[in-house]
Amino acid sequence: MTTTGKQLFTTLSADGKLTVEVAETQFTDPTGNQVLVKMEAAPINPSDLALLLGQAELETGEYSAGKLVATMPQPFHSAMKGRHDQRLPVGNEGAGTVVATGDSEMAKALMGQRVACVPGSAYSQYALADAAMCLPLGDLTAEQGASAFVNPMTALGFVENAKMDGQKAIVHAAAASNLGQMLVKICQEDGMELVNIVRKPEQEQILRDLGAKWVVNSSDGDFMAKLMEAIDATDAFYGFDPIGGGTTVDACFKAMERVAVNKMTTYNRYGSNQQKRMFIYGRLDTGPTILTPSYGFGWTLSGWLLTPFLAQAGVETMTRMRQRVLAGLTSTFASSYKTKVTLEQMVEKEAAIDYRQMKTGEKYLVTPWG
Amino acid sequence: MTTTGKQLFTTLSADGKLTVEVAETQFTDPTGNQVLVKMEAAPINPSDLALLLGQAELETGEYSAGKLVATMPQPFHSAMKGRHDQRLPVGNEGAGTVVATGDSEMAKALMGQRVACVPGSAYSQYALADAAMCLPLGDLTAEQGASAFVNPMTALGFVENAKMDGQKAIVHAAAASNLGQMLVKICQEDGMELVNIVRKPEQEQILRDLGAKWVVNSSDGDFMAKLMEAIDATDAFYGFDPIGGGTTVDACFKAMERVAVNKMTTYNRYGSNQQKRMFIYGRLDTGPTILTPSYGFGWTLSGWLLTPFLAQAGVETMTRMRQRVLAGLTSTFASSYKTKVTLEQMVEKEAAIDYRQMKTGEKYLVTPWG
Repeated sequence: MTTTGKQLFTTLSADGKLTVEVAETQFTDPTGNQVLVKMEAAPINPSDLALLLGQAELETGEYSAGKLVATMPQPFHSAMKGRHDQRLPVGNEGAGTVVATGDSEMAKALMGQRVACVPGSAYSQYALADAAMCLPLGDLTAEQGASAFVNPMTALGFVENAKMDGQKAIVHAAAASNLGQMLVKICQEDGMELVNIVRKPEQEQILRDLGAKWVVNSSDGDFMAKLMEAIDATDAFYGFDPIGGGTTVDACFKAMERVAVNKMTTYNRYGSNQQKRMFIYGRLDTGPTILTPSYGFGWTLSGWLLTPFLAQAGVETMTRMRQRVLAGLTSTFASSYKTKVTLEQMVEKEAAIDYRQMKTGEKYLVTPWG
Repeated sequence: MTTTGKQLFTTLSADGKLTVEVAETQFTDPTGNQVLVKMEAAPINPSDLALLLGQAELETGEYSAGKLVATMPQPFHSAMKGRHDQRLPVGNEGAGTVVATGDSEMAKALMGQRVACVPGSAYSQYALADAAMCLPLGDLTAEQGASAFVNPMTALGFVENAKMDGQKAIVHAAAASNLGQMLVKICQEDGMELVNIVRKPEQEQILRDLGAKWVVNSSDGDFMAKLMEAIDATDAFYGFDPIGGGTTVDACFKAMERVAVNKMTTYNRYGSNQQKRMFIYGRLDTGPTILTPSYGFGWTLSGWLLTPFLAQAGVETMTRMRQRVLAGLTSTFASSYKTKVTLEQMVEKEAAIDYRQMKTGEKYLVTPWG
């Protein structure tokens, strides 16, 4: 017995054309620890966009019912050689109802329940998901549970990672995002100091309204002085940046080092002994990261991804994190959406151009059944 | 009782003039664990140059007997605000004879011995040094022992650090340096694979003559292909770069990621799961480090300095490393010098311009007594 439904696929051809289209698909029956979820809601996160649309030239694309075709410019086309001519499902996470299960006890226990899940193919009417990663939602709606994984677990992951590394304060860039707002609340609950970097006055306001104590605006003339003041007050020598390209990380390292040097009594040619740690967890700016030689050798910069972090943290920590998310889905971990779109509406010109901008507070929710 | 002798000082004035001059100095008697060393030889290492001369405009400097004065251009002048108007000693390491000691047993045991030491003021006829960091040289000459610390311990430190991190192979950039040649020999002794990156054919030859197996030339058209081939053969996802500025680290991360991706069977939007680790341990290029977003999120880049590494490694490891260096000072850890200069000759125009270029195989040795 197979189930049939509509699903979104993205294909980058070897000759440089990106095709995103809705197609009728047959879903195989779940086996073992798999469940088949009738998907009711799935968010479009920044982490979905690289695969879904990348840097395709949407303005000059061709649009028809349930389909868009656009040119993928260089160097992005060559950089994604590994996916050329492969028809790929999209959508990291979502929520829906389990309609069939494999024969494992864990899978069978989910039958008929509404769950949040992480299938990697959430932009679809049905998706096969791993039962171990499903979170039963109880009375919550699919919309309330659709974003239960990526943003909540990432924001919680930052705080868990900081605690593991003995930190009592965090710097966060692009801090007014949905994830950033969650981080403000988590840090308040956990007594972790948080230095929020934003770039617009209205973003400052969003965070101050949540009770954030340290909010600095990178567009202000005294940005560096304010950032140093916040770091000095909180001892935040540890931070997360979703922008990636440009000088955000560099500015954080510089400010951290200047704070540390100001506390030194004698000059050291190698800079301070203060260890400075930054993580890049996104690529809102796909340009190169620029690191100037102005903060000695006591710094470390890493990429940060949720999945390897969870693997490193272990099952016990992950289970505790997921239970905390479930308990706070309508408060600390609540997500809000600008609008809802169907699978077909996802590939309409105006919508695609709009959601790809990843504007703060303007997240889209996909509802595959309309 | 005080001892009098000549010493070199470097001063960067608040108005942007760098003065390096030889001055008559009174050295206080050693106390506690200190020893007073009559310095016989001290190398000019890249790690000394930032403090000694920095980016001062030597071509247009004023030169007189035992003194040079040159303009320090921006942004370097402002970046070194912490040292403005301070008259600083220079010279990380050297060798000489202990002529007075403090009253600790460790210090007293060194009386009259020739030692390698790390006083931070080695460009001087006398220097106060920490007895715990002195290495008795036995029958070796001061010239043979002058470079017993910085390069040998750094090269050994890379291999120790790699072993601590479970690595079996290392990438090394600017690999034909004095330090790089030591690293080739250490890796041969320890069965650690080593991928050497150089930029000139004659540097390739130097390393091949030492028996280096993997030598790639970054000036060659097929550099990336050769680097990938070497990484693929050795599993070197871990490396050290003394250049700092530019794209050396970026090229290493790219090559490492491509090797890892080539082994994957399915496309992953986040790149490979292979952890890639690079360290910047010098600044031969003082321009910014450029990191392109082309190797996923599984990478970590850190500054690397010898002193914090040794502190982390612990006394036992450090003692073992030092004994290995002593045993190999005329073989594995032998240094060679282009020429010898007195303190006065260090501040002559032609010499200063020449040694600041830090050309491979053209290291200077300072002999403070002529």
